[in-house]
Amino acid sequence: MPEVELPLIGDAARRARAAARVLRTLPTATKDGALLAMADALVAHTDDVLAANAADVEAARAGGTPDAMLDRLRLDADRVAGVAEALRQLVALPDPVGDVVRGSTLENGLQLRQVRVPLGVVGIVYEARPNVTVDAAGLCLKSGNAALLRGSASAYRTNVALVQVLAEAAAKAGLPDDCVQLLPAERASVGELLNARGLVDVVIPRGGAELIQRVVRESTVPVIETGVGNCHVYVDASADPAVAEAVVLNAKTHRVSVCNSAETLLVHRDYPQRERLLAALVDAGVTLHGDDAARAAHDAVVPATDEDWATEYLSMDMAVRVVEDVDAALDHIAVWGSGHSEAILADSAIAISAFVAGVDAAAVLVNASTRFTDGGEFGFGAEIGISTQKLHARGPLGLPELTSTTYVVTGSGHTR
Amino acid sequence: MPEVELPLIGDAARRARAAARVLRTLPTATKDGALLAMADALVAHTDDVLAANAADVEAARAGGTPDAMLDRLRLDADRVAGVAEALRQLVALPDPVGDVVRGSTLENGLQLRQVRVPLGVVGIVYEARPNVTVDAAGLCLKSGNAALLRGSASAYRTNVALVQVLAEAAAKAGLPDDCVQLLPAERASVGELLNARGLVDVVIPRGGAELIQRVVRESTVPVIETGVGNCHVYVDASADPAVAEAVVLNAKTHRVSVCNSAETLLVHRDYPQRERLLAALVDAGVTLHGDDAARAAHDAVVPATDEDWATEYLSMDMAVRVVEDVDAALDHIAVWGSGHSEAILADSAIAISAFVAGVDAAAVLVNASTRFTDGGEFGFGAEIGISTQKLHARGPLGLPELTSTTYVVTGSGHTR
Repeated sequence: MPEVELPLIGDAARRARAAARVLRTLPTATKDGALLAMADALVAHTDDVLAANAADVEAARAGGTPDAMLDRLRLDADRVAGVAEALRQLVALPDPVGDVVRGSTLENGLQLRQVRVPLGVVGIVYEARPNVTVDAAGLCLKSGNAALLRGSASAYRTNVALVQVLAEAAAKAGLPDDCVQLLPAERASVGELLNARGLVDVVIPRGGAELIQRVVRESTVPVIETGVGNCHVYVDASADPAVAEAVVLNAKTHRVSVCNSAETLLVHRDYPQRERLLAALVDAGVTLHGDDAARAAHDAVVPATDEDWATEYLSMDMAVRVVEDVDAALDHIAVWGSGHSEAILADSAIAISAFVAGVDAAAVLVNASTRFTDGGEFGFGAEIGISTQKLHARGPLGLPELTSTTYVVTGSGHTR
Repeated sequence: MPEVELPLIGDAARRARAAARVLRTLPTATKDGALLAMADALVAHTDDVLAANAADVEAARAGGTPDAMLDRLRLDADRVAGVAEALRQLVALPDPVGDVVRGSTLENGLQLRQVRVPLGVVGIVYEARPNVTVDAAGLCLKSGNAALLRGSASAYRTNVALVQVLAEAAAKAGLPDDCVQLLPAERASVGELLNARGLVDVVIPRGGAELIQRVVRESTVPVIETGVGNCHVYVDASADPAVAEAVVLNAKTHRVSVCNSAETLLVHRDYPQRERLLAALVDAGVTLHGDDAARAAHDAVVPATDEDWATEYLSMDMAVRVVEDVDAALDHIAVWGSGHSEAILADSAIAISAFVAGVDAAAVLVNASTRFTDGGEFGFGAEIGISTQKLHARGPLGLPELTSTTYVVTGSGHTR
């Protein structure tokens, strides 16, 4: 039971808890049927959703929201169809609930099985994009969890419209009432969600570093931390120059606003093509912030400070440091890395082995771009975020990561 | 990096972090050699340990500590030999570090492996028993983690002696300095440990409900919650009376002070041997706290209140409630259970299936005593506690539960 008053979300959380007790027992077919019905309903109610969204966009524009943010907020018929399609694709993914993770028969004849079960009630706190509302609802329901969604105030009308459509379709298709609920947009509702220990089983923040840090600091409900990626690419002396140039450019410039893009380049001092590599980045439009050795390699490199090593730019900026060897690269990453994705570009098996053993991160990429750390790329089919914490789940969070387990122990009157 | 000042533990935590970077790369043979050396050193230094322990026991006695607590604190040569033997037994267990949890080759040729890695720095906060000092150190080191141990002030001299012996032996055997450290016994050191986010990867409390709740409430470091067990045994109408009597007695009376002992008995109203079952408990010395129907079944049953349903007695007391059916039992457990272990005694496969699907707990036991929820009984060889949380690990915590994972992605110049 929660130890605090929850005036804004208490009722919703208690109803979610009741829904979760039913959800955990439903067969896959019922959940999949509901996902298809939700997708159909979204498409059928596109006009309602777009009307609500237009009101949100207009209010945001009137409030002075910049165009880039408005674009994140805006839906159109194609985007609605896209999120509906994402729901349909969840049907094709295996249901993790009921999977036997391990099993054995003990010496005394007891049968031991560790079985996947839903987490229960999952709270998601996220920022503007309304597609998260649909994605998160779908992932939670497919994995048998009730969803409490706390989107941003700027998308509230859109989210109300989306959740109404989703919840009605789900209930008609046999899911329990209240299995998907939108929480009020009042600022205090986040704080309540983070303290609803005993009603909410886990909170997942999706958004910028500030949101994530707030959730981690304040929450007494267990948290799955997602997202901050201060990712490094280390170019070893043994790196193939063609591989190095292609992968570094891809890791930095393919999509700068995402957590798995590279932010710092670490170059072995004996890598022979240092000047050419930096020139390629500059030519691609990247602003380099470098140490003295990097600045000596290209005129356009501006001086780097500790703040550069610490920054997740999410822009066409990149920090560059020339390092003595793989150990120095590992030292740098140990100090500045955020535990997301770290890449080594090298031909030396010994250097690769040292890097893989020494890096402490969700993903280590060998001769591949950091951009591959992604649930879709890994073949998980869908993800609710990328965990940078060590407990529970690290890396892309797919459906199995939205479950817990129960040991089922079957005997015939066994006593100790 | 931690956001707070850590005057008492900051140096130790930073040194632990450095040690963890080495530990994660060590082969199993080095770790196992160290465990054997630590065991030998403990036995060789038995006199030093016992002298320190005698001083702790004497100080506790002078302070008025009751005899039962003194017994938990006291070591003798046999107990020292026992904890040394427990270290040796860890050698026989498989090293989880390096295990490939899953692996595949993606369509684009990228090789994906999810590999077990140590958590890093593990903080353990525990109460009197000094054997925990040795157990926790051994489990952490075998799984490649540095250990920060915060034992109780009453066992401080004993713990200093133990950790000195363990750390010296470990260093001589090739483990990094500072891989096992004892934190100061000042009250404030617990608070610092709970806020050493960025230096400490996980905190595991081992002790009573009050300690665990404090850790959960205050910690910004991720926590693995252990231990509180308000365990239920549900006796279905279909239960075999001989099984019911044997298992209920065992679950309640085999060892009352442990978290996997039963605290509440739920009896289906149509179970034919209700009177006999309650009489057997009373005859065994159990004080029953029951609802009206239970009181009607035996004169010795005293009235139960909501507090009885909520209480982990850890004594020869048991709450008893007569329920209408398996759903009513599930309702009771959903309200009052602590998510530890719940048992059903039944012959009806349908009742068993409903119970297993409907109970949300670390372990569900079918026709078996709750006392079987235990790392040793499950064949895990050793446990650092029993998790009652849903994230990361649920149920007995063995060596694999002291690890995280890293995705290792190997390409040959792959870009998106």
